[in-house]
Amino acid sequence: MEGTIKSPANYVPLTPISFLDRSAVVYADRISVVYGSVKYTWRQTRDRCVRLASALSQLGISTGDVVSVLAPNIPAMVELHFGVPMVGALLCTLNIRHDSALVAVLLRHSGTKVIFADHQFLQIAQGACEILSKNGDKVPLLVLIPEPLVQSVSGKKNAMEYEDVVAMGKSDFEVKRPKDECHPISVNYTSGTTSSPKGVVYSHRGAYLNSLAAVLLNEMHSSPTFLWTNPMFHCNGWCLLWGVTAIGGTNICLRNLTAKGIFDNISQHKVTHMAGAPTILNMIINAPESEQKPLPGKVSFITGAAPPPAHVIYKMEELGFSMFHSYGLTETYGPGTICTWKPEWDSLPREEQAKMKARQGVNHLGIEEIQVKDPVTLRTLPADGVTMGEVVFRGNTVMNGYLKNPEATKEAFKGGWFWSGDLGVKHPDGYIELKDRSKDIIISGGENISSIEVESTLFTHPSVLEAAVVARPDEYWGETACAFVNLKDGSKVSAEELISYCRDRLPHYMAPRSIVFMDLPKTSTGKVQKFVLRTKAKALGCLSKKGVSKL
Amino acid sequence: MEGTIKSPANYVPLTPISFLDRSAVVYADRISVVYGSVKYTWRQTRDRCVRLASALSQLGISTGDVVSVLAPNIPAMVELHFGVPMVGALLCTLNIRHDSALVAVLLRHSGTKVIFADHQFLQIAQGACEILSKNGDKVPLLVLIPEPLVQSVSGKKNAMEYEDVVAMGKSDFEVKRPKDECHPISVNYTSGTTSSPKGVVYSHRGAYLNSLAAVLLNEMHSSPTFLWTNPMFHCNGWCLLWGVTAIGGTNICLRNLTAKGIFDNISQHKVTHMAGAPTILNMIINAPESEQKPLPGKVSFITGAAPPPAHVIYKMEELGFSMFHSYGLTETYGPGTICTWKPEWDSLPREEQAKMKARQGVNHLGIEEIQVKDPVTLRTLPADGVTMGEVVFRGNTVMNGYLKNPEATKEAFKGGWFWSGDLGVKHPDGYIELKDRSKDIIISGGENISSIEVESTLFTHPSVLEAAVVARPDEYWGETACAFVNLKDGSKVSAEELISYCRDRLPHYMAPRSIVFMDLPKTSTGKVQKFVLRTKAKALGCLSKKGVSKL
Repeated sequence: MEGTIKSPANYVPLTPISFLDRSAVVYADRISVVYGSVKYTWRQTRDRCVRLASALSQLGISTGDVVSVLAPNIPAMVELHFGVPMVGALLCTLNIRHDSALVAVLLRHSGTKVIFADHQFLQIAQGACEILSKNGDKVPLLVLIPEPLVQSVSGKKNAMEYEDVVAMGKSDFEVKRPKDECHPISVNYTSGTTSSPKGVVYSHRGAYLNSLAAVLLNEMHSSPTFLWTNPMFHCNGWCLLWGVTAIGGTNICLRNLTAKGIFDNISQHKVTHMAGAPTILNMIINAPESEQKPLPGKVSFITGAAPPPAHVIYKMEELGFSMFHSYGLTETYGPGTICTWKPEWDSLPREEQAKMKARQGVNHLGIEEIQVKDPVTLRTLPADGVTMGEVVFRGNTVMNGYLKNPEATKEAFKGGWFWSGDLGVKHPDGYIELKDRSKDIIISGGENISSIEVESTLFTHPSVLEAAVVARPDEYWGETACAFVNLKDGSKVSAEELISYCRDRLPHYMAPRSIVFMDLPKTSTGKVQKFVLRTKAKALGCLSKKGVSKL
Repeated sequence: MEGTIKSPANYVPLTPISFLDRSAVVYADRISVVYGSVKYTWRQTRDRCVRLASALSQLGISTGDVVSVLAPNIPAMVELHFGVPMVGALLCTLNIRHDSALVAVLLRHSGTKVIFADHQFLQIAQGACEILSKNGDKVPLLVLIPEPLVQSVSGKKNAMEYEDVVAMGKSDFEVKRPKDECHPISVNYTSGTTSSPKGVVYSHRGAYLNSLAAVLLNEMHSSPTFLWTNPMFHCNGWCLLWGVTAIGGTNICLRNLTAKGIFDNISQHKVTHMAGAPTILNMIINAPESEQKPLPGKVSFITGAAPPPAHVIYKMEELGFSMFHSYGLTETYGPGTICTWKPEWDSLPREEQAKMKARQGVNHLGIEEIQVKDPVTLRTLPADGVTMGEVVFRGNTVMNGYLKNPEATKEAFKGGWFWSGDLGVKHPDGYIELKDRSKDIIISGGENISSIEVESTLFTHPSVLEAAVVARPDEYWGETACAFVNLKDGSKVSAEELISYCRDRLPHYMAPRSIVFMDLPKTSTGKVQKFVLRTKAKALGCLSKKGVSKL
């Protein structure tokens, strides 16, 4: 159009780096990060990030390189989320539950040039480097992050240390901005619930837009105080590391999560916002009264990763938390939906309200559209609350693709949509509700059994702390539901009692035919590792007609 | 990067159209627009916008065409902000204070193909069309928007009517999305404070990003209730027409602004957010007690367009409003800065607090950077709170350029920055403070006099309602300050008293040498028309040494 131009005056590639540059001015003296007695302001945080970028540049890191980190929720994680992109590189945040063998696989696959390792995970990182070395693979430079609360010991060091790296950087380093906002900013390997890890690539544009969407979805005002109870390494902390920066919030870091630590920190720092998987919710609602403290004000809590049982949401709200339920995948930068509350639900009975809140909801602002589709015909299925299909996403906060895996990317994006692998329905009000992972569905006598539905029923039993349901081979039915149950401390209930409890509340074919009592294996992000349970269920052997079931 | 692709699954051009599509699902049954007894839900609003787009398409409107509107804050304005872009066209919102001659100029310059005119402004639009017709120019199709509160009279009509247009559209019309998010969405002619109007072109991308920035800057939560006291035709309602849609808010429309109407609507609809120029603030704080009503809760009020006097902010807060001060220009999509409050200011005396709030502040999230530069050397000036220069902007929410005026665009974007024409300083804390428009500065004996500073002093006088200061030719000093003052009802004060009041509080050379009592001429957006006053000041003649001044 005549008279209009694209100029540096009116076009700046979108990147979360802008958030930090702005907050270092607007919120210069406000606290950015707290970890015990360690505190920084936004001005200091930006300076440290710039120096980190400068040091990485001196170490030979440049555009498109990968820098990895193996650390819990500590201040260095905040700094790496900016320092690494500021030199044009990708940040790869590794899951701290991985062992050396898996870390070695991921370092090799990503081509990591530098790995930062928290002291608690140093051996894992060293072990991974040894494996790479033995195999003749290129070994990344290892940087140790010592405990920030302990004075560094001078003298001979076994590895380069984090503060030395920051110190060698220059404050006047010229930060590299992406030339194209679709350039990658990070890579997140999908967690252990899938057998072959895939490197999910995020872009500067997607990270920018998902950060703002996350801020709005969390109803965050200017300068919130965010307590980190979701892992920073998971989906870049659901993009909240960048999001909290955008609005000049304060990051409260915690190395270890305990109910006492959570309540103490909420109270001490007047926390306003939190996020976490249902395991954290369980930790909070089951905390002994002696460890609980009254909340200092409204605390918004966003939960995701797995559908929260209705009664858990209900109990959290009794404690005073405002619960938001979100859903997404690593491939959607973490949260992609929000179960937006409707005022007309206020008059529903509280149990019904909790059921409404347990639905996955509607696309947030970064996602353009969410549908339930037939995975074979690719057709959109009716929004009738009944017809089950695969949940698909489309929008700017969907990943760039799987690193070095064009086949998997092509498969995931068939027909111009991202196929989540999650099965669900769309209700007439446009809200989606998950029924299962496609591989978690149990097919019994030709009928689909939603493992989530069986789990939800088990959760309503007063003795059940956690439950996970998978398929067990069955001579007659093909598969039947097998429940793994973790009871509350001091509770007692028999398998037969639980089965009959389910049969009273579900169609008979859906009730579990076998129950196993045990602690549930979980990923570090709080997801139950169903593939472990499926192996266990198979090992139990094929059920004969003489099994427990009386169908 | 290997394995990553750009696909419809992960890339969608940014456009405010996405906001409406999403809100029609997420906030389907919530009220979108209220105008007296007229009410729509978001589902209905989207349906009406799609039909409007469909009808425009039937009328021959397509990508790149311009559709204009001449209307106050009525529901059709909300619909046109989506319906016009949904057919790929640009919306041109005309200032309702323009006369037929000026409207004709703008219709011709923009190449408007359809003009929608509210019944109150029908004659202006008809007059403009007649002028075009007489000159042999192409005459746009005129669509009348009758009063929505009055039942339409059937029978012979003089012009096509708005509801007929909506009715002829189809609900299943395929909405046109921009192929490139930088494509234009609207054109805003700059208001009458400049002598030659320029058509400022906004893009879909800029509109999207400024909407989110405006939502965050207003600290808007999900589903706010927004009372329209800023004109929708001005900078597309500071992008809040799109912003309120993004978060499913309710637009309360008012045709005429009166203190009583404002207080009544705040109370009746439980308004949470408002915006407006200082004239609206004056209307509110000077309302007779009989017309005031207590606020139903916190009401955030964002003010801009002209620097608000400190005592006005102070009085608004006494009434219970939470005041935010923002600054920007038509070229920055309206607000581009926000005077973000710092907690350490809480302990300042209230007058000092109000002074802090009157500063223009820091760039909002859509603007990348704001600086004060020397307009000759283009160098950035020190942030010392003293060195005056021109305020410059850079970021995604700066216009695409001036329509059909590449020379003006080039001039405005020199050196990769947008030059605002406003003079100001940057304080050491990074906050900018305006001192004057470059053409409003008064140069007296070689010293710069900031008209804003003189006005601020006049405002502190208890009898002064409004004041505007311009240069008057002076035999000895070159120029001296001439103040135009509007006194409060029933107040009496002489010119000599006011001058000596200023001399007691300002350096003597800055005090006005002449005072004229009168109503101030204003643009419809509440800006004082200083060019009118400058002409008046010149007409007063050159002051001789024997003038009032006793320097």
